[in-house]
Amino acid sequence: MPDELMFIERSGKYGTLMSTDRVLYDSRSDFQRITVFENDLVGRALALDNAFNVSTVMEAFYHEPMAHLPLAMASGARDVLIIGGGDFGVATHVLKHRSVRRVIMCELDGGVIEAARRFFPEWAEVEKDGRFELVVGDGVAYCREADAESFDAVIIDSTDVYGPAAALMSEEFYGYVKRALRPGGVLMQLSTDVMIYRDNWKILVPRLRTRFAAWAPVLVPIPFYLTGSWGLVMARKGEEPLDPAHVTAEYLKGIGGVKTLTPEGVRAWMAPPPYIQPFFEDLNA
Amino acid sequence: MPDELMFIERSGKYGTLMSTDRVLYDSRSDFQRITVFENDLVGRALALDNAFNVSTVMEAFYHEPMAHLPLAMASGARDVLIIGGGDFGVATHVLKHRSVRRVIMCELDGGVIEAARRFFPEWAEVEKDGRFELVVGDGVAYCREADAESFDAVIIDSTDVYGPAAALMSEEFYGYVKRALRPGGVLMQLSTDVMIYRDNWKILVPRLRTRFAAWAPVLVPIPFYLTGSWGLVMARKGEEPLDPAHVTAEYLKGIGGVKTLTPEGVRAWMAPPPYIQPFFEDLNA
Repeated sequence: MPDELMFIERSGKYGTLMSTDRVLYDSRSDFQRITVFENDLVGRALALDNAFNVSTVMEAFYHEPMAHLPLAMASGARDVLIIGGGDFGVATHVLKHRSVRRVIMCELDGGVIEAARRFFPEWAEVEKDGRFELVVGDGVAYCREADAESFDAVIIDSTDVYGPAAALMSEEFYGYVKRALRPGGVLMQLSTDVMIYRDNWKILVPRLRTRFAAWAPVLVPIPFYLTGSWGLVMARKGEEPLDPAHVTAEYLKGIGGVKTLTPEGVRAWMAPPPYIQPFFEDLNA
Repeated sequence: MPDELMFIERSGKYGTLMSTDRVLYDSRSDFQRITVFENDLVGRALALDNAFNVSTVMEAFYHEPMAHLPLAMASGARDVLIIGGGDFGVATHVLKHRSVRRVIMCELDGGVIEAARRFFPEWAEVEKDGRFELVVGDGVAYCREADAESFDAVIIDSTDVYGPAAALMSEEFYGYVKRALRPGGVLMQLSTDVMIYRDNWKILVPRLRTRFAAWAPVLVPIPFYLTGSWGLVMARKGEEPLDPAHVTAEYLKGIGGVKTLTPEGVRAWMAPPPYIQPFFEDLNA
């Protein structure tokens, strides 16, 4: 192993490493360390507080389910709120939906936005879209002040919820989100994997359930995330179940250019295998 | 990061690391370095030539598709040949099938077998099963000498095929396997992921296609494998397509104790998403 500048992400007794061809940016904002590096395998990558967030090569594996699954459940969505998402990636995919007339992205850290404009210009392009509106500020406060029943979908694309973004899995916050959603509206949130961070679900789900009748885990393979399998969670304001059958081949074709989603894949991600199914069932008890 | 004995597996510019609570065994056989270590996240792990093979915590994610998918396609299979598989893991799962009357496991490296008996006794248990037969020797030679049409399924559970086990993806070898299979019989083989080792498919598939009319990739999430997504390949002696619909809830229930497989999951694994579908289509051209 030659000497080199290596990006190492550990989580207890497991971790990943990426050798860097070049570190393009490394700075501290008021909130966190922001690093942009690249190598010819993962492409250009964004790390926040030394945690790999996303890269140009694998972004669709993360952004597509975050954007297109809630919008499939909240059919014909017009108004979408993104909490976090400062790399503009989720917004890019949400704006592919012709039904959408307004996307508000509320990102806490202006430093992430600046870095994204500079190093991920293909995503920051959305700022030219007349339907896009940027708010730099606290997502919890934004949701508290938002008009009731003003959004069809709220997508929470934060750093890990077991870390600094913990306020984004508080009962209080979920109450604000529910109020801001129209009837039938859908929340989508990054949760955690179930191999390393399984316990996070025990905190998150009970809080979500105090506010939302319907919820569902989405266990999605995301290459270069720690174990390569990650968890998202969806919830709906209303009793209608979150049915993966909404993600049809026709729906995906209508979006255009979708890379990682198939109807079969989404059904699988929402049908937890036997090793983890009882765990999720217990969370419903 | 405290000083520690760390298992690091690199593949070019990406890698994984596992801290070891204890290295139980580390030795060189005539063929390779054999290491057994454990930590409380992955359980007890087997590494061959510094490549993570399998561990007690994640074994089902790998062994179950390797065993239960070909046996679903070759319904009522009676005779099964395993090439490699010296940790006895695949054999353990194959022997759960009541239709199976004989399993031959042909492992090249007696050192792996000795290590497995000592450190993975729950898998080596299969040696007590009257249907199980061990051959220590070369898998290519075994297939060359095998009776024609004597197996319903041949499962190739080797180390990485782009490495020392390259002979297990030669046209010659596939010819022997085809001859050894009964009509309608199925080959299952570990291939590679499609993020890091995509080019391996360009070597493997054309060779497979010279011998087998029907083949299919199976893209399966395997936690703690490099990118967390891996690739298996199936092929059939005969024209009948390899239809994931064979993996029904009833079939899985009949095996008993299956942890990682669902009908939805198998359908998804065999329906490559748009980002990789054209790649596989080109291999068919």
